[in-house]
Amino acid sequence: MINIIGVLPDDTIETDVKVTEENLKRYKWYWVDFSEPTADEFQLLDTVFHFHPLAIEDSGIILQRPKLDYYDGYDFYVTHTVKQEGKEIVKEELDFFVGDNYIITFHFEKSKEVEQVWNRITSQTIVEKWDPYYVFYQTLDKLVDAYFPVIYDIEEKLDDIEDNKQNQSMDELMDELFDIRHMLLHIRQTVNPMRDLLYRMLNSQHLTGVKKRREYFSDIYDHLLKVSEMVSSNREITSDIRDNYLSVTSHQANEVMKVLTIITSIFTPLTLISGIYGMNFRYMPELDDRYSYFIVLGMMLFIGLSLFYWFKKKGWFD
Amino acid sequence: MINIIGVLPDDTIETDVKVTEENLKRYKWYWVDFSEPTADEFQLLDTVFHFHPLAIEDSGIILQRPKLDYYDGYDFYVTHTVKQEGKEIVKEELDFFVGDNYIITFHFEKSKEVEQVWNRITSQTIVEKWDPYYVFYQTLDKLVDAYFPVIYDIEEKLDDIEDNKQNQSMDELMDELFDIRHMLLHIRQTVNPMRDLLYRMLNSQHLTGVKKRREYFSDIYDHLLKVSEMVSSNREITSDIRDNYLSVTSHQANEVMKVLTIITSIFTPLTLISGIYGMNFRYMPELDDRYSYFIVLGMMLFIGLSLFYWFKKKGWFD
Amino acid sequence: MINIIGVLPDDTIETDVKVTEENLKRYKWYWVDFSEPTADEFQLLDTVFHFHPLAIEDSGIILQRPKLDYYDGYDFYVTHTVKQEGKEIVKEELDFFVGDNYIITFHFEKSKEVEQVWNRITSQTIVEKWDPYYVFYQTLDKLVDAYFPVIYDIEEKLDDIEDNKQNQSMDELMDELFDIRHMLLHIRQTVNPMRDLLYRMLNSQHLTGVKKRREYFSDIYDHLLKVSEMVSSNREITSDIRDNYLSVTSHQANEVMKVLTIITSIFTPLTLISGIYGMNFRYMPELDDRYSYFIVLGMMLFIGLSLFYWFKKKGWFD
Amino acid sequence: MINIIGVLPDDTIETDVKVTEENLKRYKWYWVDFSEPTADEFQLLDTVFHFHPLAIEDSGIILQRPKLDYYDGYDFYVTHTVKQEGKEIVKEELDFFVGDNYIITFHFEKSKEVEQVWNRITSQTIVEKWDPYYVFYQTLDKLVDAYFPVIYDIEEKLDDIEDNKQNQSMDELMDELFDIRHMLLHIRQTVNPMRDLLYRMLNSQHLTGVKKRREYFSDIYDHLLKVSEMVSSNREITSDIRDNYLSVTSHQANEVMKVLTIITSIFTPLTLISGIYGMNFRYMPELDDRYSYFIVLGMMLFIGLSLFYWFKKKGWFD
Amino acid sequence: MINIIGVLPDDTIETDVKVTEENLKRYKWYWVDFSEPTADEFQLLDTVFHFHPLAIEDSGIILQRPKLDYYDGYDFYVTHTVKQEGKEIVKEELDFFVGDNYIITFHFEKSKEVEQVWNRITSQTIVEKWDPYYVFYQTLDKLVDAYFPVIYDIEEKLDDIEDNKQNQSMDELMDELFDIRHMLLHIRQTVNPMRDLLYRMLNSQHLTGVKKRREYFSDIYDHLLKVSEMVSSNREITSDIRDNYLSVTSHQANEVMKVLTIITSIFTPLTLISGIYGMNFRYMPELDDRYSYFIVLGMMLFIGLSLFYWFKKKGWFD
Ligand SMILES: [Mg+2]
Ligand SMILES: [Mg+2]
Ligand SMILES: [Mg+2]
Ligand SMILES: [Mg+2]
Ligand SMILES: [Mg+2]
Ligand SMILES: [Mg+2]
Ligand SMILES: [Mg+2]
Ligand SMILES: [Mg+2]
Ligand SMILES: [Mg+2]
Ligand SMILES: [Mg+2]
Ligand SMILES: [Mg+2]
Ligand SMILES: [Mg+2]
Ligand SMILES: [Mg+2]
Ligand SMILES: [Mg+2]
Ligand SMILES: [Mg+2]
Ligand SMILES: [Mg+2]
Ligand SMILES: [Mg+2]
Ligand SMILES: [Mg+2]
Ligand SMILES: [Mg+2]
Ligand SMILES: [Mg+2]
Ligand SMILES: [Mg+2]
Ligand SMILES: [Mg+2]
Ligand SMILES: [Mg+2]
Ligand SMILES: [Mg+2]
Ligand SMILES: [Mg+2]
Ligand SMILES: [Mg+2]
Ligand SMILES: [Mg+2]
Ligand SMILES: [Mg+2]
Ligand SMILES: [Mg+2]
Ligand SMILES: [Mg+2]
Ligand SMILES: [Mg+2]
Repeated sequence: MINIIGVLPDDTIETDVKVTEENLKRYKWYWVDFSEPTADEFQLLDTVFHFHPLAIEDSGIILQRPKLDYYDGYDFYVTHTVKQEGKEIVKEELDFFVGDNYIITFHFEKSKEVEQVWNRITSQTIVEKWDPYYVFYQTLDKLVDAYFPVIYDIEEKLDDIEDNKQNQSMDELMDELFDIRHMLLHIRQTVNPMRDLLYRMLNSQHLTGVKKRREYFSDIYDHLLKVSEMVSSNREITSDIRDNYLSVTSHQANEVMKVLTIITSIFTPLTLISGIYGMNFRYMPELDDRYSYFIVLGMMLFIGLSLFYWFKKKGWFD
Repeated sequence: MINIIGVLPDDTIETDVKVTEENLKRYKWYWVDFSEPTADEFQLLDTVFHFHPLAIEDSGIILQRPKLDYYDGYDFYVTHTVKQEGKEIVKEELDFFVGDNYIITFHFEKSKEVEQVWNRITSQTIVEKWDPYYVFYQTLDKLVDAYFPVIYDIEEKLDDIEDNKQNQSMDELMDELFDIRHMLLHIRQTVNPMRDLLYRMLNSQHLTGVKKRREYFSDIYDHLLKVSEMVSSNREITSDIRDNYLSVTSHQANEVMKVLTIITSIFTPLTLISGIYGMNFRYMPELDDRYSYFIVLGMMLFIGLSLFYWFKKKGWFD
Repeated sequence: MINIIGVLPDDTIETDVKVTEENLKRYKWYWVDFSEPTADEFQLLDTVFHFHPLAIEDSGIILQRPKLDYYDGYDFYVTHTVKQEGKEIVKEELDFFVGDNYIITFHFEKSKEVEQVWNRITSQTIVEKWDPYYVFYQTLDKLVDAYFPVIYDIEEKLDDIEDNKQNQSMDELMDELFDIRHMLLHIRQTVNPMRDLLYRMLNSQHLTGVKKRREYFSDIYDHLLKVSEMVSSNREITSDIRDNYLSVTSHQANEVMKVLTIITSIFTPLTLISGIYGMNFRYMPELDDRYSYFIVLGMMLFIGLSLFYWFKKKGWFD
Repeated sequence: MINIIGVLPDDTIETDVKVTEENLKRYKWYWVDFSEPTADEFQLLDTVFHFHPLAIEDSGIILQRPKLDYYDGYDFYVTHTVKQEGKEIVKEELDFFVGDNYIITFHFEKSKEVEQVWNRITSQTIVEKWDPYYVFYQTLDKLVDAYFPVIYDIEEKLDDIEDNKQNQSMDELMDELFDIRHMLLHIRQTVNPMRDLLYRMLNSQHLTGVKKRREYFSDIYDHLLKVSEMVSSNREITSDIRDNYLSVTSHQANEVMKVLTIITSIFTPLTLISGIYGMNFRYMPELDDRYSYFIVLGMMLFIGLSLFYWFKKKGWFD
Repeated sequence: MINIIGVLPDDTIETDVKVTEENLKRYKWYWVDFSEPTADEFQLLDTVFHFHPLAIEDSGIILQRPKLDYYDGYDFYVTHTVKQEGKEIVKEELDFFVGDNYIITFHFEKSKEVEQVWNRITSQTIVEKWDPYYVFYQTLDKLVDAYFPVIYDIEEKLDDIEDNKQNQSMDELMDELFDIRHMLLHIRQTVNPMRDLLYRMLNSQHLTGVKKRREYFSDIYDHLLKVSEMVSSNREITSDIRDNYLSVTSHQANEVMKVLTIITSIFTPLTLISGIYGMNFRYMPELDDRYSYFIVLGMMLFIGLSLFYWFKKKGWFD
């Protein structure tokens, strides 16, 4: 579907605009939104707007890296939105062609961010404050703001894992940690190129539309810097949690094995002694002695306690 | 609450100042401190000082990244204080608007650092040495000085952990180590952007207030470099401690298992022998022999000692 | 084998061209493809084209690093193709000499990419759109596009491993993971220098052929950036998978050892008791008592259950 | 204590110099050494030399980071010496104020390096070759040369650990490794800022004293580069040693556990059999048979050997 | 020993040259090779050639870092050769003083590379193609080419280790891996500074001798880039191999422990039962029953099988 806003020289807007080269010339500037475009609509990028084939190709491809390409008379931006659905990070691409007197937004899925900006501009009668780069800024701002809830959600999950608030088994914890690391990796693949894109925009000599609103785009860049740092901090925390569990686990294994070894070491010799006096040889002098049984019991007690104190002295009970 | 110092052309100060555009013009320069401001006071940033909406928005948000934004006629700084409360690092934001003839400090919590500088300036009658950037320097210097005790405290804890001075269990040690790593990560998130902020200030062409006092801000930068290195060194030490414990633990596990295996290997065959001669078959020729018992005991001793020497020869007792 | 296309001043092409200096001067521009060249054909680089000995040496060597060398009147490029054969990444070198009015492609193995471009140009009658750098771009574009299936295949395998979809044993999984890491390392050795090569091309002042088609080579650079990021992400995922398995494995070891220790700890003392009352001493007062047997059985039950609850209380069953 | 050398215009030296502004003007250049200065002597930095308060503050603080500050008319350097005392790296600070016609050295502990240079200059009668920056170079050179024995000593210790030449227990080895890593970290904290300091000196436009003797300071920079690389190589070696021990340890654990499992698996079933025929039931038909005993012994042998060969076939003895 | 080639203005060479300042002036250019120089010969660097004391000092020191120093009228290079002797990487230093009309090579050990170049130049009668920087290039080229066999040998060893082709024990494998890592570290210490040296040479404004032969030195730089990447790749492979073994080892440990636990868990209770009925109490009602023995045997079978299926159901046999 294609939606268009045409802004007339007196800063009033029209929304019922025919997309022909002739007609579009009437407007001071205009915004064309390609939302889930059909193949026919997709053709318009070429037939009406005459964009470069490589830019059109990039629009048609799903999930290019976020980037900025300069073309004659317009700039082409690829950006990503990020959403969390279950244990998966879902990204969608939102492309912008920004010229002096127009902006084209292009996306294969419905875009909440575009819709919000659309509603805001169409709710006004005079739009003198707006121009193509302001539309671009507004959309980008909403798009980047949407990264934060995803990270906050991950941070909350990490907090739960750290203290094992949900009483999960080790296997579940490790699996969840692994999924979180996976998600952070996916987010990083979007956030870092987005951050670099904004950096490039802020330092570009060509982008007068950005220069004029430097503080606005700078504000978005701040957000991306912050998200980027949160992502890498959280990845460090995940690996810290894992290393911590590993240390604790291997220590526990040690403790368990000490118990096993102490029990085995104390009882095995005693069992042998009892086995020896359970043998059925005819001539076993000790068997007939009146006090043998008590002597052997005493001996067992002595051996058992000796071993116990030996282990204690070796510090195995600490 | 809002506190104001107005400095008159003769370098005397007034503290009972009305915050209106008209009135403020009387002063050579002035300092307005927003401490735990009410919503009404917050409005003054816009209505009286006419700061940019994005700068005002940043003031209103808690825990922006430390940063510097240039606006027409003033610079906007976001900085962080760091305190330790129990096992948590608590950070608070302290914002500065610095113009030619004013400085605005803005913070949602009471600020010990601002208070100190306030007391120092108000205790003087002539303040010719002071100007807005000197107030900024003084506050920043105190704020950064406050990072050191936090790090020193962590270093002390690490020393305790290294030598296990508090005789903690492995679990407790690893948990404390994990918390320290967490804290260091949190501090790093403040210190590194602060360091980069100072670097940017020192190398900025626009900040004449910083240029004039280059050696002072350079001194703060030195401190931040040092803190930043201490943070990363200490993170390395924590991971060293953990790796060290892991090595030692896994070695101990080996030793424990050797003891277990030696005991088991020596006594299990002997127990089998005793079991065999404890069977109740009617026809067991050995049982009737006069010396059988002693032969079997000798045999057991021989097997036991052989196994013992075999393990010894394999180096299991080293 | 050598194939040649000569483009005449009227933009028609000839494919039956004699390779002599004299003859080649007739053409507006020409393309010579050395495919699996014989030693004699290899000589032509020197005798007919007079390339620099070091460039010729580089052509003769197999698997140089991707790179660009400027020589007087022409540029020399070394590039790599990447294919997957079983568990091995196979790379082949494709060299280009690009001058103002010629392009030489040089490869010791058949090149699918060169063939595709060859077929495309020879299927046209007028080739006004083409020139040496366009041939270069077309080949490079196909060559880089061929990296993607290799990575996609690896990503699929990683997905299989993550969820162990093929029900492999731990040994097989780790071995496959190791092979994948090996492959990613090999790909990285090609992709990163290729990426740097394109970066250098895009930022070179000398390469007018690249400048004229900046957006095209920029498109290839985008692809290489993306591949490069996929490679490093996937390497991180492999190490994550391994660390995850390691955590889980070491946790399981703990669980297994707990079972062992519980069983041993409960039954070993009971076995000792049974052994004691199985001894054949003549004077063992307990043996004659009517209720001794039941008392001992009860005692055993009590000791067994006590130990069981003690372990339970220690949390060994969680 | 303060020592002073004054160099007269005829390049002869005086060592009995009064530290007053007036008197010092008589000399072509002079060197004042503050060694373990008293509080009174410390004041002279301000009262006689009028250094900047921040530079004086830095002198008074122990263990600033090595650095260079430019002040009007003089440069201020903070450098570190490194010594090894037992298992601790001891660092001391040595500060330099270098002006056109003077050098001030400042240190709270006795400095062997300063003493050496002092003795060398005072042993000469004509010192035309010397000037403040030459004194600085000489001292710095000695100071940096003193880093090497510390590293060489560590390398020797690592060699000992690698081959366990001192037959230490695993615990001792790991502890020593940990201490070495600690020391290397400490040294790195000095060496890297020192290296960066020299780099900055060599590339500074302001330091004519350094420019004039570029090759000399460059020589020191070489040394620092080398030390810095040795430190990081040795840290890698320590972690390699630890990882190696960990691999070997975990492999040995495996071997030990296999022995345990084989022994247990073979003997436990046999012991059960002997236990069964040791039961005292009145009706056990096998007991009365003439050959039962031998049949059971044979059966035991068969089971034992079968299990043995089964483990052998599984490759547990490799 | 000192060898000299003097090239006369007519490009013929003399090899019987007296080393005096006077005599050397006769030549268009000359090459002096100090091979294993005596102390007297070492003096010539000062007395005849008047090199800077720091450059002479560097020549006298063994194993400086590879580097380049500019002096008035000549450049001083320190380079390293790399050889493998057993499990050790042996490096030797080869120093060059290169002036407009001379080159001095200096080495304390015999140099195969110098010899090769020497033989090549002396086998010619007219040497118009040669000059000091061409001698330098030729030697450097050979020296760097000699790095490759060392790496190839290591790669082969790694391949052997990967597939354990030599059927080594785990201990031997880990030890060999450790030695290989050690060697790679040593090589890296030479290769990376050599690479940086070439980079600096190629980008230096001062070195006209290098500029004139840019493509030749660029070719050496390519080689060093390639070696440097091979070294770091191979280090990654070694750590991959180790991590892989560690994973597999820890998995095997798990499997072994499961076998142990299953065996122990099944047989220990049965042994207890047999022990109970082997007790010698006078009043044990079960003993007299005709079918007790068979009931107990059946019970044992039932318990054993139950436990077996319970472990099977828990997935311990997978
Ligand atoms: Mg697209
Ligand atoms: Mg925003
Ligand atoms: Mg916003
Ligand atoms: Mg937390
Ligand atoms: Mg999962
Ligand atoms: Mg903001
Ligand atoms: Mg704020
Ligand atoms: Mg301070
Ligand atoms: Mg201070
Ligand atoms: Mg310490
Ligand atoms: Mg905790
Ligand atoms: Mg300071
Ligand atoms: Mg080639
Ligand atoms: Mg492509
Ligand atoms: Mg394409
Ligand atoms: Mg996946
Ligand atoms: Mg394999
Ligand atoms: Mg594209
Ligand atoms: Mg690691
Ligand atoms: Mg000091
Ligand atoms: Mg030195
Ligand atoms: Mg020296
Ligand atoms: Mg060694
Ligand atoms: Mg210690
Ligand atoms: Mg030197
Ligand atoms: Mg030397
Ligand atoms: Mg070569
Ligand atoms: Mg060559
Ligand atoms: Mg291989
Ligand atoms: Mg070794
Ligand atoms: Mg080459």
